[in-house]
Amino acid sequence: MKSHPQINAQRLLQRIADFAAIGATSAGGVNRQALSAEDRAARRLLAELAVARGFGVHQDAIANLFIRREGRNPLLPPVLIGSHLDSQPTGGRFDGALGTLSAFEVLESLEDAGVRTERSVEVVSWTNEEGSRFSPGCMGSMAFVGAGDIDRWQHMHGIDGTELGDELAATLQALPEAEMRPIGRSVSAFVEVHIEQGPVLERAGVPIGIVTDVQGTRWLEISFIGEAAHAGTTPLEFRRDPMAATAAAIAHLQLDVMPADPMARLTVGRMIVEPSSVNVIPSRVTFTVDIRHPQEDVLSSIEAQVRAECRASAERHMVDVRIEKRFDLAPGKFDVAIVDAIGKACERLCVSSMKLVSGAFHDALFISRVAPTAMIFVPCRDGISHNEAEFVAAENIETGAKVLLETTLSLIGEQYLPR
Amino acid sequence: MKSHPQINAQRLLQRIADFAAIGATSAGGVNRQALSAEDRAARRLLAELAVARGFGVHQDAIANLFIRREGRNPLLPPVLIGSHLDSQPTGGRFDGALGTLSAFEVLESLEDAGVRTERSVEVVSWTNEEGSRFSPGCMGSMAFVGAGDIDRWQHMHGIDGTELGDELAATLQALPEAEMRPIGRSVSAFVEVHIEQGPVLERAGVPIGIVTDVQGTRWLEISFIGEAAHAGTTPLEFRRDPMAATAAAIAHLQLDVMPADPMARLTVGRMIVEPSSVNVIPSRVTFTVDIRHPQEDVLSSIEAQVRAECRASAERHMVDVRIEKRFDLAPGKFDVAIVDAIGKACERLCVSSMKLVSGAFHDALFISRVAPTAMIFVPCRDGISHNEAEFVAAENIETGAKVLLETTLSLIGEQYLPR
Repeated sequence: MKSHPQINAQRLLQRIADFAAIGATSAGGVNRQALSAEDRAARRLLAELAVARGFGVHQDAIANLFIRREGRNPLLPPVLIGSHLDSQPTGGRFDGALGTLSAFEVLESLEDAGVRTERSVEVVSWTNEEGSRFSPGCMGSMAFVGAGDIDRWQHMHGIDGTELGDELAATLQALPEAEMRPIGRSVSAFVEVHIEQGPVLERAGVPIGIVTDVQGTRWLEISFIGEAAHAGTTPLEFRRDPMAATAAAIAHLQLDVMPADPMARLTVGRMIVEPSSVNVIPSRVTFTVDIRHPQEDVLSSIEAQVRAECRASAERHMVDVRIEKRFDLAPGKFDVAIVDAIGKACERLCVSSMKLVSGAFHDALFISRVAPTAMIFVPCRDGISHNEAEFVAAENIETGAKVLLETTLSLIGEQYLPR
Repeated sequence: MKSHPQINAQRLLQRIADFAAIGATSAGGVNRQALSAEDRAARRLLAELAVARGFGVHQDAIANLFIRREGRNPLLPPVLIGSHLDSQPTGGRFDGALGTLSAFEVLESLEDAGVRTERSVEVVSWTNEEGSRFSPGCMGSMAFVGAGDIDRWQHMHGIDGTELGDELAATLQALPEAEMRPIGRSVSAFVEVHIEQGPVLERAGVPIGIVTDVQGTRWLEISFIGEAAHAGTTPLEFRRDPMAATAAAIAHLQLDVMPADPMARLTVGRMIVEPSSVNVIPSRVTFTVDIRHPQEDVLSSIEAQVRAECRASAERHMVDVRIEKRFDLAPGKFDVAIVDAIGKACERLCVSSMKLVSGAFHDALFISRVAPTAMIFVPCRDGISHNEAEFVAAENIETGAKVLLETTLSLIGEQYLPR
């Protein structure tokens, strides 16, 4: 029997604290949006930690970052583990970072134990999972599986007016020691640890969720276009008020969609009003609608409902409406063998687990198109995520990393006697 | 019978074109904001025109500009006519200038006819009606009636960072020939010609509006505060969504307030969503509500309705609500005798007219607190104002000036046989 690699929980917690300091917000969260200076600083720190342990550092044209621990047979497709390091503008310290640093901890634990694996193991940090600065999200994993158009993305502008091409080039240049790699390659498996970002595990008192499916997501950008006019001198019958049309449409959709289907989600997270003057009826209101459901056909019927309601409201309010689909992600099913490997790892560790459907999309959803993939969820307090108050208990962080290590070992074919 | 003074329409149109050249924008509008170099140039031109006709030129400490045509009895309070010369940053050429130059045309027509009036007639250009550079607007007329705090205004900074006291001093010094006068004095009447800034006259096909009331205005700033959470993983029962609360409140108010009272106005012109991410349930939505009505008690009941609806929506959506009043301007009633004088003037000129309530506030609203006051509205194309596309047809400009002349003559007690 070989000596079993051990997760160093204190080291992992320290790493999470160190990365949380990059882009830290006063409220205890992080603002480390994709391709920003903060994102670059986090990538730099991970690369330095990798070099210090003798791991290889690689990046590709969309700035996906890979940390490689070479196996005996470099020609075998590696086992890939990891997540992302970018965050929402007022994000938490665990979304993405937990999975990336748990994966790095697995790599370090293998190194500590001096284990030589047949198959190489790689940690990945995918670029722009959040999509809050440059839309859509999951750019890195999309590009990796050939589902993204990098050339088109180059010229896209972020919400801060910057051009993606410029920010991407600066991000790549910030890691000169990283070896450039073509986008996309064969991997034997991908496993991603992530916080649940929902309340189910916590309420069930179960430390590990094994994700079998991912909800489909569609993003619509809707503009109501009316006519700017004086707030005081324009009687109701002469108004073409896009704000009135917007409020009516959203109010109806909130009453119709989610109450009718417990699996459905509808969210308006962003709204721009022009010209934005207190005493001027707006000329245009633009807002986003995020809809989710695990069944493709239901997702389509919800989208149809949104379009119909907006058209009806536009007609009632004598304004024009434009609806554009900005993002369309089909529901996903994870690989039965990987799901089974995670389940067996939990059994060996005597950790209770339950199977889940993810309400959030993740890079793993894209990678599952080209490699056997599954995810490990850990509970987060009150299910709160995309929020500076996001919190994961230390014991759950440790359990998640142990399950990832155990799963990784089984996927690279290393056998150990149970402790 | 004396010879009847005549409006010289060509001269008036030429004056309007001459003043529109001061601060002219490429789009055909004007940028002549209060106390700016352009504003000073317009005041200088008016003063030069006045001196050329032998009229007196006066200004006061807030830079209100008065052009006086002396009557037989200088001790009688004068009839005051006029408007303002400042504009919005992308304003039209008629808002303010039309009323000031129509009033000056009345003075010139009296001079042309060699009419000696018992009572003096004065043209006024009030300072900073627009309030776009230095807030609030109507500073000149407010100060004239003792409702403004000039000492406090001195230290206020404009949107361009300049200090009002400096700009005011430079403006006063730019007219050294103007005789300084204390602020506020007795006037026998005030009549202001202005564009309607709304669509009513044009759609009714009526050239003259006689303004009987000015709507009161209140501005509320409302914030719904919920909890940011993930758009995909947060089921309806766990959401505290301020956007859902906002949409429901605005939708209800749009259905309840204006349809129930044709005089009521309710406008949501500004909205800020935080953190403003497509896949995050917002933590806070802040928006403005502009409410207007000619009756103070109804205005109060509408405000109460807005507050009650927002509190109810906050409760339904499990979010908090904060409501702050940002602006409160009481409705104004114009003088019945002046309104009647304008009506009779229209009859003598065989000009059709209709009574109107002004949805916008004007300097006349403040002057009505100290002197018998009313306003004459002329139609503007498509009701468009505060816009470089603002346009008034030549025949409506001429009609407005004729009605102002006829009204002024009746107010100074001059009688003429109808032509």
